[in-house]
Amino acid sequence: MNLPERVRIVEVGPRDGLQNEPGAVPVAVRVELVDRLSAAGLPAVEAGSFVSPRWVPQMADTDRVLAGITRRPGTAYPVLVPNARGLEAALAAGAEEIAVFAAASETFSRKNINCSIAESLERFAPVCDTARQRGLRVRGYVSCVLGCPYEGYVDPAVVARVAADLAQLGCYEISLGDTIGVGTPLRARQMVEAVAQRVPLERLAVHFHDTYGQALANLFAVLELGVSVIDSSVGGLGGCPYARGASGNVATEDVVYMLDGLGIATGVDLGAVVATARFISGHLDRPPASRVARAWRTE
Amino acid sequence: MNLPERVRIVEVGPRDGLQNEPGAVPVAVRVELVDRLSAAGLPAVEAGSFVSPRWVPQMADTDRVLAGITRRPGTAYPVLVPNARGLEAALAAGAEEIAVFAAASETFSRKNINCSIAESLERFAPVCDTARQRGLRVRGYVSCVLGCPYEGYVDPAVVARVAADLAQLGCYEISLGDTIGVGTPLRARQMVEAVAQRVPLERLAVHFHDTYGQALANLFAVLELGVSVIDSSVGGLGGCPYARGASGNVATEDVVYMLDGLGIATGVDLGAVVATARFISGHLDRPPASRVARAWRTE
Repeated sequence: MNLPERVRIVEVGPRDGLQNEPGAVPVAVRVELVDRLSAAGLPAVEAGSFVSPRWVPQMADTDRVLAGITRRPGTAYPVLVPNARGLEAALAAGAEEIAVFAAASETFSRKNINCSIAESLERFAPVCDTARQRGLRVRGYVSCVLGCPYEGYVDPAVVARVAADLAQLGCYEISLGDTIGVGTPLRARQMVEAVAQRVPLERLAVHFHDTYGQALANLFAVLELGVSVIDSSVGGLGGCPYARGASGNVATEDVVYMLDGLGIATGVDLGAVVATARFISGHLDRPPASRVARAWRTE
Repeated sequence: MNLPERVRIVEVGPRDGLQNEPGAVPVAVRVELVDRLSAAGLPAVEAGSFVSPRWVPQMADTDRVLAGITRRPGTAYPVLVPNARGLEAALAAGAEEIAVFAAASETFSRKNINCSIAESLERFAPVCDTARQRGLRVRGYVSCVLGCPYEGYVDPAVVARVAADLAQLGCYEISLGDTIGVGTPLRARQMVEAVAQRVPLERLAVHFHDTYGQALANLFAVLELGVSVIDSSVGGLGGCPYARGASGNVATEDVVYMLDGLGIATGVDLGAVVATARFISGHLDRPPASRVARAWRTE
């Protein structure tokens, strides 16, 4: 067992969370959400995305979100960027970190971004080059690392290859996403072990969804390998807690509760995260999806 | 790592689950629930409790439940028994296995059953003797093994002592209950390690609640020690999924999903458990509390 002493949590609620919620949230609420999260001690808060609002209306006006937030020294505010045009918009909005994304499944890649995995990486190469020349940090996502809604089984060797390609493009960190939340602990561990043969473990993050309730168990299994970066979403944003097929990210407060109990430092104030989960859930007109937010008693 | 090849799941929904639901469920529904669970392959289905209906009205008529079910060969149907009178009622109803319960917290013991831990064990001694003379198997529960709502921290050494005392009374298996679901993986593992110094690991079961979403992570952590008996509750019965302070048992379907993914045999049909979760949740007029039951698509 090789638990890390400290874990960096990358909060993805304002982007990966809200973009999968049915309704759009006003800019002022998104700004307050990001500011509450950074104030809670989260070292990275994904603030939005520069994809076309035709495809993802929830992420429209990300430039106004970036303009509205109070940037805390030491906090990163990455934004998702799909192409060169998105990068220009991110630069114009003053972004200092971007994230690019590829899939570990050919079918998912084609259905989601309408090109092969190789084509998506080719498309990102100049984006990553330009971003780095302009002083931005670039983070890479790999989706479908533990299963694909179209193909089912995904080979860890393919995940490792895509992760290595993103690292080669200059991504400082590769986030491994169980997009549909089908993974279980041993498979999660084996996948990370396979990727770590190509990309140093210190550069890997895990991004698990809690669709089948497995996310914390999977996280514990890979923490035992020494993984020390976890993506999570306040309130489990990103999947309706009652709909069948709910596919929200693992909730930040559930992750922090576990890490606190494991004695792993995060710098995050659990009570503040729970309060933020209730804040945003109120705006979405439903209770938070996380068990901690429901069980937590405000003293 | 020492994962077991096979896990025995003890289904506690019809007892520990339903007794903590606000409304009483008709006998015919309880009978169908037990029969569906045994048909799904669960090797043990806790069928009810012979406590006073004044205290636990949800468990009234457990004798009629036992009379109504179709007993499958090889399936155990334990019933909870608080004292000699309860044992007589269980015997009259044809029970073949009983469960007795003690706490690892003095305050919880006093508040819950109005006596000290030592007094509760003294009270159970003749019950266990009589039960075994009459050919019944006796299972023992220890509650508050990872925390107490009144005392907070619970010393694993106390858990180990109470577990050893129950084993001494003749309990063939000791179920270690995180009654309020506050545990995290390392503490769960350390607690089981402490108890295993007094009672052989093969005689230990774990009984985790999912109040803070930690149950599956805790289960994975103790599976790695070789624990091979898990209590769970279909649909996560035992805690309202929306109320603050919800404290349901870990859901059987979430556990089976994880064990299936780990390649650990259970003999349980996941689809049948999900169908049963929906059946009983329909009678309780709410969706199931488990993520698997919400995400599972009936083909």
